[in-house]
Amino acid sequence: MNPGKLQIVPLGGLGEFGMNCMALRWGDDIIVIDAGLMFPESELLGVDIVVPDIGYLLENRDKVRAILLTHGHEDHIGGLPWILSELNLPVFGTEFTLALVEGKLEEHGLLDSAQLNEVKPNERFRIGSFLIHPIRVTHSLVDCVALAIHTPLGVVIHSGDFKVDPTPTDGNLFDLHQFAEYGKERALLLLQDSTNVERPGYTPSERAVRPRFEEVFTRSKRRLFVSCFSSSIHRIKLVAEMAFEHGRKLALVGRSINEATEIAQDLGYVNIPEGTLIHPGQIRDFSPERVCVLISGTQGEPMSALSRAAVDNHKHAKIEPGDTVVLSSRIIPGNEKAIYRMIDHLYRRNANVIYEDGAGSPVHVSGHASQEELRLLINLVRPKYFVPIHGEFRQLRRHAELAASMHGAVGSVMMMESGDVLEIDELGARKAGRVTVGRVCIDSGSSSDVVEDLIIRDRRHLSEDGIVLPIIAINKLTGLVESIPEIVMRGFAAAGIENGFFSEAREVIGRTLEQSSREEKADYGVIKEKIRQDLKRFISKNTSRRPLIMPVILEI
Amino acid sequence: MNPGKLQIVPLGGLGEFGMNCMALRWGDDIIVIDAGLMFPESELLGVDIVVPDIGYLLENRDKVRAILLTHGHEDHIGGLPWILSELNLPVFGTEFTLALVEGKLEEHGLLDSAQLNEVKPNERFRIGSFLIHPIRVTHSLVDCVALAIHTPLGVVIHSGDFKVDPTPTDGNLFDLHQFAEYGKERALLLLQDSTNVERPGYTPSERAVRPRFEEVFTRSKRRLFVSCFSSSIHRIKLVAEMAFEHGRKLALVGRSINEATEIAQDLGYVNIPEGTLIHPGQIRDFSPERVCVLISGTQGEPMSALSRAAVDNHKHAKIEPGDTVVLSSRIIPGNEKAIYRMIDHLYRRNANVIYEDGAGSPVHVSGHASQEELRLLINLVRPKYFVPIHGEFRQLRRHAELAASMHGAVGSVMMMESGDVLEIDELGARKAGRVTVGRVCIDSGSSSDVVEDLIIRDRRHLSEDGIVLPIIAINKLTGLVESIPEIVMRGFAAAGIENGFFSEAREVIGRTLEQSSREEKADYGVIKEKIRQDLKRFISKNTSRRPLIMPVILEI
Repeated sequence: MNPGKLQIVPLGGLGEFGMNCMALRWGDDIIVIDAGLMFPESELLGVDIVVPDIGYLLENRDKVRAILLTHGHEDHIGGLPWILSELNLPVFGTEFTLALVEGKLEEHGLLDSAQLNEVKPNERFRIGSFLIHPIRVTHSLVDCVALAIHTPLGVVIHSGDFKVDPTPTDGNLFDLHQFAEYGKERALLLLQDSTNVERPGYTPSERAVRPRFEEVFTRSKRRLFVSCFSSSIHRIKLVAEMAFEHGRKLALVGRSINEATEIAQDLGYVNIPEGTLIHPGQIRDFSPERVCVLISGTQGEPMSALSRAAVDNHKHAKIEPGDTVVLSSRIIPGNEKAIYRMIDHLYRRNANVIYEDGAGSPVHVSGHASQEELRLLINLVRPKYFVPIHGEFRQLRRHAELAASMHGAVGSVMMMESGDVLEIDELGARKAGRVTVGRVCIDSGSSSDVVEDLIIRDRRHLSEDGIVLPIIAINKLTGLVESIPEIVMRGFAAAGIENGFFSEAREVIGRTLEQSSREEKADYGVIKEKIRQDLKRFISKNTSRRPLIMPVILEI
Repeated sequence: MNPGKLQIVPLGGLGEFGMNCMALRWGDDIIVIDAGLMFPESELLGVDIVVPDIGYLLENRDKVRAILLTHGHEDHIGGLPWILSELNLPVFGTEFTLALVEGKLEEHGLLDSAQLNEVKPNERFRIGSFLIHPIRVTHSLVDCVALAIHTPLGVVIHSGDFKVDPTPTDGNLFDLHQFAEYGKERALLLLQDSTNVERPGYTPSERAVRPRFEEVFTRSKRRLFVSCFSSSIHRIKLVAEMAFEHGRKLALVGRSINEATEIAQDLGYVNIPEGTLIHPGQIRDFSPERVCVLISGTQGEPMSALSRAAVDNHKHAKIEPGDTVVLSSRIIPGNEKAIYRMIDHLYRRNANVIYEDGAGSPVHVSGHASQEELRLLINLVRPKYFVPIHGEFRQLRRHAELAASMHGAVGSVMMMESGDVLEIDELGARKAGRVTVGRVCIDSGSSSDVVEDLIIRDRRHLSEDGIVLPIIAINKLTGLVESIPEIVMRGFAAAGIENGFFSEAREVIGRTLEQSSREEKADYGVIKEKIRQDLKRFISKNTSRRPLIMPVILEI
């Protein structure tokens, strides 16, 4: 009988959407799976990203051996700079995942010191007491893996994010056989993605959007703009292929789309035929029916390329009557108003707008497994213990119910939330206390120093934080600003504020307003973000301080 | 040849969601169809409701003859108190619609002076140059009508809100024949609801939820909570019937559900068998499997009965393990986070939660016509001119496209937005300028005086408005408030603020926080609303002022 205990310690992502991070511990060996971020709720004003509290890892810093990454989405790798700056651990991931990580670490000046180790699906490696076996899975991103982790008590399978796509665009199939192999003798524990547990049936393949795209490319008589998540490498590949097939030049507009496409090209996931790619500045050199623009900004983010194009405020991407705009993405809850506002602007420019509205064949498909795929993986792996991961509480609960109804395939189902410790030994599995978890809010701003300057965690008192509220009164009828902007501050006195500060800050806001179009001023999301950014730059330059800046629009 | 001109002047609801209001003018006669409100976007902080600017009606006050109501939803009647307090016009509506209006006017002290006129479907009446013919339509509410308005140039048909429900629960059928009659010689103009234009096919009947309800009532072993929009009279009727059939007592919890049910009972739409209804205080007197609770709060509104029950903060509605909670409503975009947070709380209490998630048979159906129903009405009416109404710009555009593709059935399609004037004469139809429209923000607060105190429209300067920002720092890990609440004010000095004001206001916030549970404090939507309400009461009592109050939570 093995006297050891295996501990599963989720540090984020169980009971909340995003910032996925989980520790596995056997004796003096701790490994960490994923290091994600979450995007803040609107209530957390002035915060740009949120990462998990890694107090547990810091307390056990001499035991933590490595971070293993399942894939390169922000909710799985976005917290890496923050963790690595506290704990410089070896990082293991696939080629594509590491390429995304490299860009991220470089931005934060951490690349030189980072220890990145490439892994390949089906090539096993050892870390302390653990033998790790990455297994190829399919997802909306490429080069994704699940992890089979051999422990002295048995095999733990962490699904990562996945769907079972029978026809992925890159031809890299979901490795059903490896999962089946582990199921022969039952896995010890399956940790499975809960994101789409509310959806019945199967999630369609990445190829399922092709018919709709074929139709759009065929019918568009003028410029064609396609917007997708920059991480949708399958989608980018498809658009590049179809642009070439339909004799259109391809322009990439927006930083995130450019970066993602460059990496995907370097690693052979996207192959843009010679002569197809043009610079955004060349868009006007070609007749409209010969141009396709892949553009960032599916979520109506106020400063994104597509949002700016929609209000005619982008240098290269001009939307003209008869152009077609395809939003090949889902609407992330909370973004509806911003997205529909952007769609309205596009329609006002007399563009044809194609978006996922439940009608017709899909223009976007999800990357996460629906109920039948979740059941399939459970049946393949036949785990003794099952824990739903990656989801809000209701999703974990429904996933637990789904698994619990699969008699024969699953032994026991355990519900855990971030911070709960699951302990497994020869006698069984049980919850064994909690560790400290939490959310650390980061104002990613412009500074490259993640830790010392940006973390608001230690801003214990408001008087240190400082908050600045520019207040602008806009007349809804005329769109005019009705008074000189007011600026309310609190806990932000300190150095650098002289007599002229207020009037200068007001001038900054005044300039921002002057340089904004009527449409932008009517779109409070846009105008608030512009004011926030300009004022941030001004305050940072003049005071070296980084108060929360929270523009308030009063409609009068 | 008739030398007159007919003008169609939408004052709200075209290019925006809600506050539906439209004027029709012939010579010196103006009639107004509907007088709705809209719920403000989150950017309009501190504003409770938004109503259309009626400057056009005020400028022509000697010509405005009446307000005609199509049905009793807030986005069609919610602006009435505001309009009637400026212009005491005769109001025409069906019995049920007027019953809802009465309650509303009574609240605002306007009922005694109001001129309410009941109309019946198919009973025509004359107002100035117009002959009005209300036609029965089906919708999620009862007693709804479309209006056929006979003008010297022909018949204008305003659809109101509708779907074509072949099996409404009240047996009052959509009057296809009257529409067909008008189509024989083509109507002049059809103004048609665009809300669901993005949905292909047919909207299911109100009866379509019955199978799922039957299953839930049969399978629930303990208390059954059902939440629906208080205006869903069909749904309330169904729940009352099924409670009786399944031997459960029915308790009504929440003000809006009680009021709506009372009206529906008075008018014979809902018939609760003797002995079925119990007072909420009696819930505990019956064994759990014999109780059904109809409860307000489908949208996770912070102060609603269901939200409070979900965090165990409702006197009568206690959710216990094994109870079932049915959310029989749609998720209004923007409310996802609040709703899912509430669902999580319910799951944490070990309730079974049933909500519309796209799986299984529906637990809610829409009240608006999908594409095939829109096409059906167009084919019945065969209008010379078609204008889409009730929708955001993209919906109007798509509705215009849908109609324009119906060659033969439709003459010309015109796109209009609120404020555009459509002019029709013997020569044709054209846009003829614009009138002033806009949004008037109202802080509905506690005062009964709509006009003088509440309208922030004339608060031309921030210094008059005043804004109060209570700032609370909450430690995410512990849920504890980390510092004494700060209060930032601007433009709110004036009378009544003495030395003790700030410390007293802080004490008010302190008490609110003390009296809130840990779960409430973790739910920023709830805690902000509680602070806002308590502080508003305190400030109003001590200063007779009504500044905008905007609580800010800082997570540290």
